[in-house]
Amino acid sequence: MASTDKPVDTEYSRPTSSAQPHAGVDLFKFDVILRFLLFAASLVSVVVIVTGNETKFLPMPRPAKFRYSPAFVYFVAALSVAGLYSIITTFASLYAIKNPAVRAKLLLHFILWDALILGIIASATGTAGGVAYVGLKGNKHVNWNKICNVYDKFCRHVGASVAVALFGSVVTVLLIWISAYSLHSRVPK
Amino acid sequence: MASTDKPVDTEYSRPTSSAQPHAGVDLFKFDVILRFLLFAASLVSVVVIVTGNETKFLPMPRPAKFRYSPAFVYFVAALSVAGLYSIITTFASLYAIKNPAVRAKLLLHFILWDALILGIIASATGTAGGVAYVGLKGNKHVNWNKICNVYDKFCRHVGASVAVALFGSVVTVLLIWISAYSLHSRVPK
Repeated sequence: MASTDKPVDTEYSRPTSSAQPHAGVDLFKFDVILRFLLFAASLVSVVVIVTGNETKFLPMPRPAKFRYSPAFVYFVAALSVAGLYSIITTFASLYAIKNPAVRAKLLLHFILWDALILGIIASATGTAGGVAYVGLKGNKHVNWNKICNVYDKFCRHVGASVAVALFGSVVTVLLIWISAYSLHSRVPK
Repeated sequence: MASTDKPVDTEYSRPTSSAQPHAGVDLFKFDVILRFLLFAASLVSVVVIVTGNETKFLPMPRPAKFRYSPAFVYFVAALSVAGLYSIITTFASLYAIKNPAVRAKLLLHFILWDALILGIIASATGTAGGVAYVGLKGNKHVNWNKICNVYDKFCRHVGASVAVALFGSVVTVLLIWISAYSLHSRVPK
């Protein structure tokens, strides 16, 4: 709880010159852009795979939906979490642009949470990609027939979605990199 | 390019007391342990999935091998890279225990590389796990029959291998966390 008689001119009581030499590089604007990209990638990825439903008549109607595969369900859940996370952290990053005092602390939390989200997105991309590859190529050793020659629209959607999620994973790695670099630049030599 | 007449006693010309207040927490011993765990996890994971070969006679001999599935081949490749990486970084971490001067720089590089390795391990675990799950449960929507009721030994090996790789992913997240925390503790308040 903040004290009621808060000092008005904190800037004067604490000279900024002591903090100045270790201010480090400021990559928060770049951070905001990357987080927005992560949000866009998550949104596109989820929308594309969800809208991939396709029904073929062979000879009775047989639909293909993402929710028929646990791998794709996990994928949609993970990317939704990533999208939500990127919205929250975009605002946190914008807040840090206005309040330089919180930056060092925020960079630490960004790395901690980004690492967790990276694990989730990367594993989800791998899971969906692995199952999609079986759908594309089949596996004759275990008699899993390829399905992408039948469900072409569904497979295009899944493939595009996985590709966009892969892009999202790369963006998350970049986010960790710039946070780590910014944090390191604040350490006195 | 370094000058040829480099100063011999750098420690004396630059007093250590100025660096002392921001020395930060030292988690390198913990780092070494985690990196060894990552190595052990990678090794066990690769060995277990490679030794899972199983041949069933139904009625002709039909073997199950990890290299029949591109997902498992990627898994073995990724975990081998992670194992090799963990050996190299264990030595780097041991070097940092003896040479405190390199720590801040090394922590930055640890975070950069660990994030990349995390992306690789997590995606490989997801890929192998996704395909293994299809093998375990099948998918009646696309007529992919479950195979783990036939190849029980092979599936046990794959399952154990994926579980150990998941543990390795968690260890890698922890590695990023302690590096980020150590780096943050060196930033002056």
